[in-house]
Amino acid sequence: MKAILVICDGMADRPVKELKWKTPLEAAHKLSLNKIAKTGVCGIMDPIAPGIPPGSDTATLALLGYDALKVYSGRGAFEAVGSGLEVLPGEVALRCNFATVSEDMIVLDRRAGRIRNEDASKLAESLQKVKLEKAENASFLFKNTLQHRAVLILRGEKLSTAVSDSDPGKTGERVRTVKALDSSLEAQLTAEILNELSKAFHEILKEHPVNKERIEKGLPPANIILFRGAGKIPQIPTLQQIYGVKTSCIGAASLIRGVCKTAGMSLIDVEGATGMPDTNYMGKAQATVKALKDYDFVLLHVKAPDIASHDKNPQLKIQVIEKIDEMLGYILDNVDLTTTYLAVTADHTTAIVTGNHEGDPVPIAIIGPYVRSDDVEEFGERTCAKGGLNRIKGVDLMPILMNFLGKTKKVGA
Amino acid sequence: MKAILVICDGMADRPVKELKWKTPLEAAHKLSLNKIAKTGVCGIMDPIAPGIPPGSDTATLALLGYDALKVYSGRGAFEAVGSGLEVLPGEVALRCNFATVSEDMIVLDRRAGRIRNEDASKLAESLQKVKLEKAENASFLFKNTLQHRAVLILRGEKLSTAVSDSDPGKTGERVRTVKALDSSLEAQLTAEILNELSKAFHEILKEHPVNKERIEKGLPPANIILFRGAGKIPQIPTLQQIYGVKTSCIGAASLIRGVCKTAGMSLIDVEGATGMPDTNYMGKAQATVKALKDYDFVLLHVKAPDIASHDKNPQLKIQVIEKIDEMLGYILDNVDLTTTYLAVTADHTTAIVTGNHEGDPVPIAIIGPYVRSDDVEEFGERTCAKGGLNRIKGVDLMPILMNFLGKTKKVGA
Repeated sequence: MKAILVICDGMADRPVKELKWKTPLEAAHKLSLNKIAKTGVCGIMDPIAPGIPPGSDTATLALLGYDALKVYSGRGAFEAVGSGLEVLPGEVALRCNFATVSEDMIVLDRRAGRIRNEDASKLAESLQKVKLEKAENASFLFKNTLQHRAVLILRGEKLSTAVSDSDPGKTGERVRTVKALDSSLEAQLTAEILNELSKAFHEILKEHPVNKERIEKGLPPANIILFRGAGKIPQIPTLQQIYGVKTSCIGAASLIRGVCKTAGMSLIDVEGATGMPDTNYMGKAQATVKALKDYDFVLLHVKAPDIASHDKNPQLKIQVIEKIDEMLGYILDNVDLTTTYLAVTADHTTAIVTGNHEGDPVPIAIIGPYVRSDDVEEFGERTCAKGGLNRIKGVDLMPILMNFLGKTKKVGA
Repeated sequence: MKAILVICDGMADRPVKELKWKTPLEAAHKLSLNKIAKTGVCGIMDPIAPGIPPGSDTATLALLGYDALKVYSGRGAFEAVGSGLEVLPGEVALRCNFATVSEDMIVLDRRAGRIRNEDASKLAESLQKVKLEKAENASFLFKNTLQHRAVLILRGEKLSTAVSDSDPGKTGERVRTVKALDSSLEAQLTAEILNELSKAFHEILKEHPVNKERIEKGLPPANIILFRGAGKIPQIPTLQQIYGVKTSCIGAASLIRGVCKTAGMSLIDVEGATGMPDTNYMGKAQATVKALKDYDFVLLHVKAPDIASHDKNPQLKIQVIEKIDEMLGYILDNVDLTTTYLAVTADHTTAIVTGNHEGDPVPIAIIGPYVRSDDVEEFGERTCAKGGLNRIKGVDLMPILMNFLGKTKKVGA
């Protein structure tokens, strides 16, 4: 027995007025999703807890069976790991943006005109030369990833994730001074290091030939690095250790890749998988079917619906859901459903109307040889609420799936 | 107001192919169970947590309102208490089997040909004479119970339940050396005592006249005692202390009797109650009706469906469920339903297809004068999932029942 978990990022939604008060999922044409709902057992799920908007990081941790509230400290470490960097125990990693500030440090563009990888690489190289003065035993690694995105890893003893962001999160505001969020010496030291780096990076960037060239070309200079999401890698047992299963993850988003790698999962690359609405849906479907030969559990993650929601674009979200439906159709046609369980769900609600992650529950459906199928006929936020799973928590999903695989341990005798 | 809780061990199941993908419960003819579902409020219940396969011991603890994950240490102590022995705080009890081993200690028969009580009693008597050498202040009590079954109680200071089993659990494997499962001195000492006893018992048994006689008769000699399930009795408040109710238990299985006695319940014996599919169902029904005169809460436990499931026998399971249905019919006809609440459920799913306890939820229905009856018409795993209780946890059941009896304490003012 094997299992596939399909996580459609932010696919769940609230009723949308311009869709005649249907959700995008309810409005979409979705033969395969409905087939799964019809033949399987359905329900709704609170990824973290009712009413609590999850991040994609905490939600994915929960859906993999971890207590996100206990093990999660910040997004940065997962982004770093997902970008192929190594983050060791005790190290603090942050997400970074190449951005554009005015002379008085007002953020003008949080993405420095979505700077090209070539420019970002040259700039990053020069930043790595900074020497940390305030902390003798500390060092850092700064690495650009995709376009304006980058990762900063602080290495040393006595570092803390309890520090605020320098990134104000929007344009028109001043770059923030990083502050310690608790009274520990570790938080104090980490904040000092980050402020030192912020200043040193700015000094180098504003004089850098790449930026002078950008200005000449009319492009916004990448003259600041904004920090956010300080986090450590949690010391958690792998899924292999917990359940004795071989696991892999198919997903383009570096955050999800980082979470999955931390859970000990193998990362499978798919050509054309972008983490965007233009991603290679069928390539992911094919990779999933193939991965099932070598792995007991395959997580298939699709980022696109979340992006459509953040953009408040219901039509795009419907299109994306219909692409996901085709992707699922391929999987249904090509796996042996007498030996495979398949669960499809979202990691959280991302509401078209707010453009934000919300704490509403998500629909879930599970098919497989021995599920107690119910009479739900359609996959949707409201239809699934009438299903045989009733309402479960995100952290319960993995034990439920692993139980079908005979991999959960009995409590008692 | 009084309450009856009927626990049908392992009655819940997964869809079974040869039953046209119905569960045995769905396939059974069950007028009384359906009547309870129809007039009562239904739901599904996770005895421990979604996806986690419970033992009958932990599940019964949970259904009596105790936090099984906190109070449970091992099955042995409950078996001992349920067999009529006293286990004091700090003492460690183990389940034992009279078994047959070859000269090189390979287990040939885990039940020594289901040895008769008479033979087992004689052998047990001689084992009690062993003197413990390794532990000065420790002593032991060894007692046979039914056929090949026996109980070992270790008495003394500094004993631990963190020890492995000597019982390999199947034939064809070597008797195991008991190992300490943590680094404590207590676990080390307990493991040493058990290994010493295992050896000393073997020396006596292999030369015992009873075994020589067995060999002459062509019967397997009971030449080893296998140990498993080391446990202590948890120090928990009784149901009387928690709710102020008089409680009793009707059940033949020594494990369940041990759990109930530990919860302070009176044990009621029923002639012909065997803990097997041939048990005296109507005798148990009559005893339940009678017990309700003297007790506020009566737990009626039927072991049989679990046995049918472990044997992967769907027809037997259906027969057993239909016997249970008749038993419930008698109870419904003979108790005053204007003053009595009755809940019927299972302690866990035991799947015909796997023969094992599984973590799928169990159906539950409660009737009584003031329940909010729903529109479920049939008692089954899937029908009950649409009921008014929705999905609850095992540990919630007792407060729900005691609330109907006006016995739960208000939190706040």
